Amino acid sequence: MDSASSDLRHISDIDLPIDLAPRLRSQLEFLIEIDALKTVLRQSPLAAVARRENDAEHSWHLVVMVVILAEYADEPLDVGHAAVLAAMHDLVELYAGDTPVYDPTGVETQQEREKAAADRLFAMLPDGQAASVRLLWEEFEACATPEARFAKAMDRLEPLLLNWVAHGGTWQTPGVTADGVRRLQSLIGNSSQELWHAARSLIGEAEERGWLRPGSKPRC
Amino acid sequence: MDSASSDLRHISDIDLPIDLAPRLRSQLEFLIEIDALKTVLRQSPLAAVARRENDAEHSWHLVVMVVILAEYADEPLDVGHAAVLAAMHDLVELYAGDTPVYDPTGVETQQEREKAAADRLFAMLPDGQAASVRLLWEEFEACATPEARFAKAMDRLEPLLLNWVAHGGTWQTPGVTADGVRRLQSLIGNSSQELWHAARSLIGEAEERGWLRPGSKPRC
Repeated sequence: MDSASSDLRHISDIDLPIDLAPRLRSQLEFLIEIDALKTVLRQSPLAAVARRENDAEHSWHLVVMVVILAEYADEPLDVGHAAVLAAMHDLVELYAGDTPVYDPTGVETQQEREKAAADRLFAMLPDGQAASVRLLWEEFEACATPEARFAKAMDRLEPLLLNWVAHGGTWQTPGVTADGVRRLQSLIGNSSQELWHAARSLIGEAEERGWLRPGSKPRC
Repeated sequence: MDSASSDLRHISDIDLPIDLAPRLRSQLEFLIEIDALKTVLRQSPLAAVARRENDAEHSWHLVVMVVILAEYADEPLDVGHAAVLAAMHDLVELYAGDTPVYDPTGVETQQEREKAAADRLFAMLPDGQAASVRLLWEEFEACATPEARFAKAMDRLEPLLLNWVAHGGTWQTPGVTADGVRRLQSLIGNSSQELWHAARSLIGEAEERGWLRPGSKPRC
């Protein structure tokens, strides 16, 4: 897992002006702290150039996907709220790191690590807001609402598009097969039958083109 | 200006499955095309590590800032809509490049270049959606609504925070002075008196600490 590394700047160095109101000060410190999400690398290759994507770039991409693809949601959707969930969904990776979906060991400890990260990160926010921001993250994680289900579908679809453009990408990870990818991506169907149909088409054709191994492994 | 460079992948190489519906196909092509915003560099230094920020990272940061700081807006705010505007506001820089606020020559041609970029980029979207997405960008540019004014305020405040953490950053650009920065940042006051007060405090203290030249130059 690539979490924000320990050579990053610390809040104690930031030293904001003393005349700022304490509430605003803690919010600005939080906003400076999360800058480090731009350094947390995912496994996915960018479509545009040959390097890995970071969590901030990924989160931004999901927000735009929400806006552009919202019309395919099977349930009525508050687009703005889904956009907010998409922007906030990976904040805990600041400390917990990105856990690749194809890493069974990482996935086993993921919930626990992310909960600890949430405890630490959201505690930086002032009273009331810490709880409300945490609720946004929990709503996303639990797929508790149409907006959460749609944002989660985008979280699956985006790396699928990047792998498609890379003619493989993380699909080349040992142990990954087309059936395993279909199982992971089937979550898109909780939110949009039409996008799940498109995802199946991309996966099937990737398999035919040899970018993705056929067959199945139980642990995927 | 650093726009997405010509060695990037082209839509014609993406070759999506032929059984996708034409409308969805053009939307997915658009979403792959904008991946290149992750390669458009701004002048601002990250807070977390020593490199420049890209447009995708910057846009993500604004979305989270909208969520965290919305309570300071002087007008009632649809937070989700402001978040959407923040996510979409720099899409035209895919072709027009980032125009630093401290680059008077770039600023002169900015409107024309960004309009041409909008014509090209939004035309990739299907009928109806091209117009509605363009309207989001125009709403932001015109500061036409409370949401646009607040997203625009975040667009000013974010690099201010990054410069603060860098003890200078783009404030070190020749010709930039504290008065010039105050003039540029005063736009925050169109949306939030409290955040504009905080911005003035940061600018004043940056000046005292020697991270920002005192005095004024007319062209800033």
